[in-house]
Amino acid sequence: MTEEEGHMMHALELAQRGSYLASPNPLVGCVIVKNAKVIGRGWHKKPGTEHAEINALSDVRRKFGTNASEILKGSELYVNLEPCSQKGRTPPCCKSIIKSGIKKIFIASKDPMQKGLEELATNNIEVNLGLLQDKAEELNKGFFSRLNKGRPMITCKLAISMDGGIGLKNGESKWISSLESRSDVHDMRARSDAILTGSGTILKDNPRLTVRLLDKNVSSYSQPLRCVVDSGLKITGNENIFSDNLKTIIFCNSAKKEINTPSNIEIIEKPDKDGLVSLVEVCKYLGKTEINYLLVESGPRLVGALLKEKLIDEFILFIAPKLMGKEKLNFARIERSMNNINLKIQSIDEIGGDIKLLARPQYN
Amino acid sequence: MTEEEGHMMHALELAQRGSYLASPNPLVGCVIVKNAKVIGRGWHKKPGTEHAEINALSDVRRKFGTNASEILKGSELYVNLEPCSQKGRTPPCCKSIIKSGIKKIFIASKDPMQKGLEELATNNIEVNLGLLQDKAEELNKGFFSRLNKGRPMITCKLAISMDGGIGLKNGESKWISSLESRSDVHDMRARSDAILTGSGTILKDNPRLTVRLLDKNVSSYSQPLRCVVDSGLKITGNENIFSDNLKTIIFCNSAKKEINTPSNIEIIEKPDKDGLVSLVEVCKYLGKTEINYLLVESGPRLVGALLKEKLIDEFILFIAPKLMGKEKLNFARIERSMNNINLKIQSIDEIGGDIKLLARPQYN
Repeated sequence: MTEEEGHMMHALELAQRGSYLASPNPLVGCVIVKNAKVIGRGWHKKPGTEHAEINALSDVRRKFGTNASEILKGSELYVNLEPCSQKGRTPPCCKSIIKSGIKKIFIASKDPMQKGLEELATNNIEVNLGLLQDKAEELNKGFFSRLNKGRPMITCKLAISMDGGIGLKNGESKWISSLESRSDVHDMRARSDAILTGSGTILKDNPRLTVRLLDKNVSSYSQPLRCVVDSGLKITGNENIFSDNLKTIIFCNSAKKEINTPSNIEIIEKPDKDGLVSLVEVCKYLGKTEINYLLVESGPRLVGALLKEKLIDEFILFIAPKLMGKEKLNFARIERSMNNINLKIQSIDEIGGDIKLLARPQYN
Repeated sequence: MTEEEGHMMHALELAQRGSYLASPNPLVGCVIVKNAKVIGRGWHKKPGTEHAEINALSDVRRKFGTNASEILKGSELYVNLEPCSQKGRTPPCCKSIIKSGIKKIFIASKDPMQKGLEELATNNIEVNLGLLQDKAEELNKGFFSRLNKGRPMITCKLAISMDGGIGLKNGESKWISSLESRSDVHDMRARSDAILTGSGTILKDNPRLTVRLLDKNVSSYSQPLRCVVDSGLKITGNENIFSDNLKTIIFCNSAKKEINTPSNIEIIEKPDKDGLVSLVEVCKYLGKTEINYLLVESGPRLVGALLKEKLIDEFILFIAPKLMGKEKLNFARIERSMNNINLKIQSIDEIGGDIKLLARPQYN
């Protein structure tokens, strides 16, 4: 690893401190370096608070007091995302960087909404783009998906047996995976902005779809928005998701039917021509409402329908060491025309006696 | 790791040099140590040749010539299996050890067929049993299975999709797993004494079931005995397994039907009361004929029937990153009464883009 890569890795690590709370903003970390030594570090904590670059500059000023301006002159800044050029909830970072005396800036990835590169370059700052770009794009894949595709990054989580079952046809075997795996799912929920499921799952399993089992030392997070695909509005209003005050959206084909909905429940029509819900429109809607990460926790029908629309970016499979046999329910209802979907394995881990597998579909 | 464990590990590593050829004998390695220094090493190569202990003693004599007797006095011997007390194809090892002047012997695991421990102890040798016993039993699990259970260690190899399919119902998709995975299967075949399959697989896929794709630097090995379960003798005699001169056994319920069988094919009746083949009797028969390791490569029917009889000790699953969908064939025909067989994961590896998983069923 070169010295420059080391500093960018440092910035990427700092960025991750914003996990759980930064969304819909991206995770951003920043390191300021003078004569190969780190003189300031910062990261973005949550929307409405200062950006990483401003926090790093403040860190330098806090450490060096009245000498800070002198020390900043000719220094280098490493940041994983292009600094903002427009005023958002906070003043634009580019202006502060230009004023600071920093002479060189390393940026891992562009921000499609900003023109920071041009602004910095025209103000005599040497700009270097693309250092550890892959890692930077991976870190904010949900943010980039929303900006580039107009929809969130969609991860489908499934707990399956070794022969691909999610349960038995008679409804038995509620928990397939281990407690550790289930706790990991709650961590995934806490990192997601929204959870998507189908009315079948709500009616059959009656889940709460909230973050509860957090194992790690996570002090604060937001409960994800719950989204239910319920074409014909089969939900009664008595399910667990109605029993708390957390926000839920029910997507239906037509909202003519009257449901007694408490104020935390919103009903939205996203019809397709077959009397069902248009999943493409649901995902676009969620993109517009600044959802970066959507976690799918559903039955085989919705998983199959999402795959058909190429809407699953990533599977996280918890494979439990069990065989369910011929009475099992398959995890995805995949039509004959879609046979043989190839995936690419990203990582394999062991967790509580289960296998945790991350794999991405390779659509044609 | 203690010094003694280090020497036993060394013996276990030497033992593995007998892989591919030692069977039906166990893999045995031996290290002789004097004043904490290794003075001799040996391992068993193949049936009819010297045992590991004799090879290690010869190694000392070769190295130290006329001083060997003096040096061996008061030395220690490490061996992973109890030395033989009875004359087999070669003279008993215990006698040679006793004569050599060795004063202390570390044995990892007992050999149920021998009385070496008693013979050594009554001849003034300090005997220490059980050092790294688990590793020693794992190394020779097929040998111990045959002696203790009267049948080989049975490993079922399957190449499956991520949703548990072994192919499509219409017969498509011959190769599920990668070339590297398939080459690994040929290595497994070379390490096995016999391969078991069903007539369905022979008739449908017409495999040769021989070792061909060996990737590694394996200079010599034996082709495994091929065994086919064919209750009603559906095999015609024109299949690939009839086309070479390698030995094959066809197990049937009744051999009344005439088949034109070349001399490499043996037909054996192992009837059960339902007009099928008794798998328990097949496995007993293979145990009696000194098969230590049986590799199952078959379709869902035989896998299911073996599971029902608790005859599968281990699954090796090559999980390819593909989804096959609802037209897939499940890998095991498991009846409702056997639902939810639990397995224990032994290891997870990545091979050629596939997952290689070793898991052992935990029968009730």
